[in-house]
Amino acid sequence: MGNLVNRAFRLRRRPEGDLRPGDLELVSEPVPELRDGQALVRTLLLSLDPTNRIWMSDMRGYMPAVPLGEVMRGLGIGQVVDSRREDLPKGTLVMGWTGWQELCLADDALLESPFTPLPDPLPAPLPAFVGALGHTGITGWLGVELFGRVGAGDTVVVSAAGGAVGSVAGQVAKTRGARVVGVAGGADKCRHVVEDLGFDACVDRLASDWRDQLDAATPDGIDVDFENVGGEIMDHVLMRLNVGARIVLCGMISQYNAMGGDREWLGQQAIGQLIMQRATMSGFLVLDHADRFEEAIAELAGLLAEGRLHYDETIVDGFERAPDALARLFDGDKVGKLVVRVADPVTPPAAAAAGAAPA
Amino acid sequence: MGNLVNRAFRLRRRPEGDLRPGDLELVSEPVPELRDGQALVRTLLLSLDPTNRIWMSDMRGYMPAVPLGEVMRGLGIGQVVDSRREDLPKGTLVMGWTGWQELCLADDALLESPFTPLPDPLPAPLPAFVGALGHTGITGWLGVELFGRVGAGDTVVVSAAGGAVGSVAGQVAKTRGARVVGVAGGADKCRHVVEDLGFDACVDRLASDWRDQLDAATPDGIDVDFENVGGEIMDHVLMRLNVGARIVLCGMISQYNAMGGDREWLGQQAIGQLIMQRATMSGFLVLDHADRFEEAIAELAGLLAEGRLHYDETIVDGFERAPDALARLFDGDKVGKLVVRVADPVTPPAAAAAGAAPA
Repeated sequence: MGNLVNRAFRLRRRPEGDLRPGDLELVSEPVPELRDGQALVRTLLLSLDPTNRIWMSDMRGYMPAVPLGEVMRGLGIGQVVDSRREDLPKGTLVMGWTGWQELCLADDALLESPFTPLPDPLPAPLPAFVGALGHTGITGWLGVELFGRVGAGDTVVVSAAGGAVGSVAGQVAKTRGARVVGVAGGADKCRHVVEDLGFDACVDRLASDWRDQLDAATPDGIDVDFENVGGEIMDHVLMRLNVGARIVLCGMISQYNAMGGDREWLGQQAIGQLIMQRATMSGFLVLDHADRFEEAIAELAGLLAEGRLHYDETIVDGFERAPDALARLFDGDKVGKLVVRVADPVTPPAAAAAGAAPA
Repeated sequence: MGNLVNRAFRLRRRPEGDLRPGDLELVSEPVPELRDGQALVRTLLLSLDPTNRIWMSDMRGYMPAVPLGEVMRGLGIGQVVDSRREDLPKGTLVMGWTGWQELCLADDALLESPFTPLPDPLPAPLPAFVGALGHTGITGWLGVELFGRVGAGDTVVVSAAGGAVGSVAGQVAKTRGARVVGVAGGADKCRHVVEDLGFDACVDRLASDWRDQLDAATPDGIDVDFENVGGEIMDHVLMRLNVGARIVLCGMISQYNAMGGDREWLGQQAIGQLIMQRATMSGFLVLDHADRFEEAIAELAGLLAEGRLHYDETIVDGFERAPDALARLFDGDKVGKLVVRVADPVTPPAAAAAGAAPA
């Protein structure tokens, strides 16, 4: 080797908005001699994913941003063309962090990738292993199975339904007996989503009446949102959730090009951090959890008795003052629990008498 | 009875923004004769909660809006003053849906409230049963225990830390060994939160440097956000989440007064629907779930083999076109998985040859 030349894209500048010429530079570089434990892998297929754009930004992501000057990070399929390690003989097809380059020195770091080595013989065409049978397809499957917990009768909305992840997610959801509604851009793509992918309906996000289309396609509300896009369509979907709905936050592609830099108001970009940090946001109502009240009251009463629970209250006297008192909840001008005292108990029990006087 | 008079607040108009005079009307009305199975309850204490404001709006909530003309819905503590049912003798203290009125006819509907009847003798002052030992305190406990899953070493942020729910949530989180950071309005309230409630720190949301305060108080990031308020502070908190963080969405009080009516862009108000519908939003990344890959690939490969998984791909030829191809991910101008073909395999395995030709 030694006189082999590698072509690589190195990140020169963090993109602002859309990726522009000059953000990445295509360079030609000599390939160093192989050392023991290394294999030389020629990239055959490079997977392009929305997350590539995230890796270029200095925003807080789930991996460090690609350092300026480094080869752009990327997943790909390659073939071993030279080897000084026994587990990767010449000719082997591998899947992993090839990066955006034609030749990659594979060592233990590359092989730590959690993807299984490609089976021999291949049960499907090679590109499927970065697609339907690779991280892309697995993402769709995981979202439906693990986070969406999609079951028969659920109404599932999938944004970017014609995309690599969305198309798999929707089809897997169909196998679970769900009603699946896609969102895609343009009449042709919507037709494809329904006719070829087998979704029950598809909302054209480019049509001016997309809200009406979405309402009409989800007459029984929405149980699962497999979200790839974010933006105002996601907002509208949230307004149609059913009780106990699951929002599977897989992507917020509408936000990625805006990432990085300083902004005071972040909105959905902040919600996108749920993906980066694999976080969960749960809305809850006390009334749903009566089965835990006894346990809760026992612990709280114990803490109160031990003097470990400080308890503030603001008591407003007089029933007719209830509306004014409610307003105080919103201006921050009160401390602790706000209660209107309407009347005192008659023939009060011993402890209730103490309760009649604010603490 | 019969000539008893009840005073009640009836909802006459749906408030826009803050509650205004005329939205509720105070009326005096005769109390009907008791029927069998009914008890007459005199309201002693009326609990005021941010959710009261939600019930007045026609926005999609977790309960139907209070119909115009009806007595305002409310939780309270009352005492039975007359009774035609054996389980509620005169003098009994009850907790339930008294409504915003002085006298309430309690029947089976009232008693369906999931709150336990008040114990006799009372172990704490009466107002505690709508506060720290009532639905308010239980809400704080549930959020920490069930949804926040707060443990030792977690950094927990609690907004509206001086409020009825926040103060309990923070103190319960402290008992779990967490570092607890409150957010409250004004230096006095912050001092109270730290000195009396025992929080580790408190950020003054009215100070111009609240962002710096929040950063300084959470040097190791944020594991749990017990959210009562929403708005830009929540945004900032989300940007500081740690991997696996839990956002316990208890309230979005900053949004309630804006509810109802038609709006095209909803933003956090839409996120508030997670509370109303007890929904969960989970961000996830495929790389975390290698333990399920085998199962995923097996199912996907099976569907593919059966012709039940339609698989689209867009293959771009030529390594140097990768940056342009990435841009296509964001303009919607492609179908299915986007892959750059960099090279063809050498001495290809049988099936790989098929993969070299796009489907």
